[in-house]
Amino acid sequence: MQKVHIGLIGCGTVGTGVAKVLLEKKDWLSKTTGLELVLKRIADKNTRRRKEVNIPRTLWTNNAYELINDPAIDIVIELVGGTTIAKEFIDAALKKGKYVVTANKALLAEHGQKIMALASASNVEVGFEASVGGGIPIIHAMKTGLAANKIQSIFGILNGTTNYILTKMTDEGMDYNDVLKQAQELGYAEADPTLDVGGHDAAHKINVLSYLSTQSWVNMKDIHVEGVTEITSQDIQYATELGYVIKLLAIAKFMEKGVDIRVHPTMLPKDNLLTSVNGVFNGILVTGDVVGTTMYYGRGAGMMPTASAVVSDVIQLGRKIVERGPVRIPSARAYGYVPVIPISEIVCKYYLRMSLVDRPGAIAAVSNILGRHKISIASVIQKARKAGDAVPVVMMTHEANEASIQRALRDIDRLSVVKGKSFLIRVES
Amino acid sequence: MQKVHIGLIGCGTVGTGVAKVLLEKKDWLSKTTGLELVLKRIADKNTRRRKEVNIPRTLWTNNAYELINDPAIDIVIELVGGTTIAKEFIDAALKKGKYVVTANKALLAEHGQKIMALASASNVEVGFEASVGGGIPIIHAMKTGLAANKIQSIFGILNGTTNYILTKMTDEGMDYNDVLKQAQELGYAEADPTLDVGGHDAAHKINVLSYLSTQSWVNMKDIHVEGVTEITSQDIQYATELGYVIKLLAIAKFMEKGVDIRVHPTMLPKDNLLTSVNGVFNGILVTGDVVGTTMYYGRGAGMMPTASAVVSDVIQLGRKIVERGPVRIPSARAYGYVPVIPISEIVCKYYLRMSLVDRPGAIAAVSNILGRHKISIASVIQKARKAGDAVPVVMMTHEANEASIQRALRDIDRLSVVKGKSFLIRVES
Repeated sequence: MQKVHIGLIGCGTVGTGVAKVLLEKKDWLSKTTGLELVLKRIADKNTRRRKEVNIPRTLWTNNAYELINDPAIDIVIELVGGTTIAKEFIDAALKKGKYVVTANKALLAEHGQKIMALASASNVEVGFEASVGGGIPIIHAMKTGLAANKIQSIFGILNGTTNYILTKMTDEGMDYNDVLKQAQELGYAEADPTLDVGGHDAAHKINVLSYLSTQSWVNMKDIHVEGVTEITSQDIQYATELGYVIKLLAIAKFMEKGVDIRVHPTMLPKDNLLTSVNGVFNGILVTGDVVGTTMYYGRGAGMMPTASAVVSDVIQLGRKIVERGPVRIPSARAYGYVPVIPISEIVCKYYLRMSLVDRPGAIAAVSNILGRHKISIASVIQKARKAGDAVPVVMMTHEANEASIQRALRDIDRLSVVKGKSFLIRVES
Repeated sequence: MQKVHIGLIGCGTVGTGVAKVLLEKKDWLSKTTGLELVLKRIADKNTRRRKEVNIPRTLWTNNAYELINDPAIDIVIELVGGTTIAKEFIDAALKKGKYVVTANKALLAEHGQKIMALASASNVEVGFEASVGGGIPIIHAMKTGLAANKIQSIFGILNGTTNYILTKMTDEGMDYNDVLKQAQELGYAEADPTLDVGGHDAAHKINVLSYLSTQSWVNMKDIHVEGVTEITSQDIQYATELGYVIKLLAIAKFMEKGVDIRVHPTMLPKDNLLTSVNGVFNGILVTGDVVGTTMYYGRGAGMMPTASAVVSDVIQLGRKIVERGPVRIPSARAYGYVPVIPISEIVCKYYLRMSLVDRPGAIAAVSNILGRHKISIASVIQKARKAGDAVPVVMMTHEANEASIQRALRDIDRLSVVKGKSFLIRVES
């Protein structure tokens, strides 16, 4: 049996899961893969997990370079996270000719271009199945099963924390802050939830999926990102009444002139498949030019689902290491950034929520502005009535251009009958 | 650029789709895969598709052996179907050391053991992504993305024809025979629909997925198979009232002592993800010991979705052909059949439909029999009342053993108040 030697940097939650799978399922993995996967070394400054994974003290180090520089190690798994020290570890490992497996979407989204170029120069590969969708094998699906397809669009619920929050708000009518607090208590949200609730984590992930579609990266600063922090329980109620569900979607539509890529709360008609993706689960709709639309669903995070993805990469790369002959397929790629279509150019339906003084002519004033910007209204909801006071008014528009909507909203917010800042949610069908 | 030469046997619907993709997307495929995929020869006795795929007359042959025996051809795609001549073609191609790609689930399910052994002896591989789930990359997902997982269960809607029929019956209250006729007119059902409506096609497919889970095949005769032909619109109505949806499920549960593998109409609670899989779409829930439950969804049949799967296999095998060094991972496998757990041993809830004479004591007589067989009743529905005449009565049981249910039904059908043969549908949650 061929041996493949593995070094693991970072033994937090996911690292512990990976160590468990590699150690506890060793015999089963040998039998099914034909490879002996040897976890040779674990590097972490913090030793608190050591007992849990039951690894001999001698195999544990607090110095990642001990395993990066170990000539016997074939695959380095990076599970440190973040874009600073993790990048140094990966760069060093690739330069040493190690295959690398990582779950680090932030690092890939920010520096994927350089990392892939470095891997290519060293004639090795980077496995990143765990970086998107936790245990859902979406990366392998796009790389292999959908290889005959030019990808046309991706719609993903890629962040479990925000999906949990929106699900709770929808199913139980809870307020954003209450659900966030509950999610933090349950461990579904970080103490500092900014990366998740701000939409940045989903943006990193859609950039990884976009890379698989175009083989080039998008510059993160070109991705329009909105989070869920401004969604109110009122928006959820109106959406329900209108036959929609609000989800934080990561969207990439691939077109001749570039990619329309963005993350924002989106209204989906109730019968859309993604509306069945609830709680901490992730779901991804991928449309290809040959296959049509396919969907993938599963747990998007967590110790064991993510470990499943990491170990699947270790197995695939292990097979390549053992089987590879002379490399005959050059992996030269166009490494330039992909042009991004500015959000101002998108066209969709919009949900607009305004705080309007309940006074004759108020709705007419808003309608006039929309009309002037060539935006036509599909429906208006005004529930509460309080003559002279501000009440929430919701409008659904027909298809309109984002730039026009933004200009119209700016004008609307200057009306004296409008209180506070109006809010929009884009609608996809 | 490395060339890979391909021979295609069988140019019907799917074959035409494959030829179109290989010919029309040739440049794009070269750019993205690093391989030049050359469709060198097409064999079909019927030349009616030749113009459609625009292949030179000289590349067309009516003799499959011309391409099987052509030393320049690396990959043979078999799209003839059936288990006779197709088997001869595949056997001959494997013996010649060709890689083989096929969509032929019937052949794999019946003769997979021998075909895989032959491939192994010739040190080549068989790609069969197109055999299950059309364009859904479920085979690649199970082989690569889920490789760290011992598969615990698979629940699949694997047959588009029957799912279309059940969806129409559910959404529009149509009768089985009317929908079947409509499906035939739309091309969703064959003129002879037996393989589909009898559940045999789904049984072939679940055997393929079971093979990927256990690396051994199930003897087809050991799979309990029921189709949809006995489902009435009344059953659909009762199911809806009870909060369930009826789907033709292919089920495989992998246990220590064997696999519980079967195909039959199944009631699923309305909130189960598979109930969102409607029309000709397929959906597959796969549960692994590490990842938990994942789901895959897409078009389960059709020219282009199936072509997407065939070409993805061609790309993967093409890469292996070009890149492979000396084969170092032996693919020796246990080729014995997997033990199957007899259906008589399963335990689930049951929906029972009986035709019962509307007479005092009739329901009590049935209940007594169920009680004697240790089956407890969860609910009873009797809608129509026609004193002295037979009316439909539906009972939902709590969990019971299949053998007990079958014995109870036999006893029930002997009661003088019971007319005709009673009918059951198994309930999964």
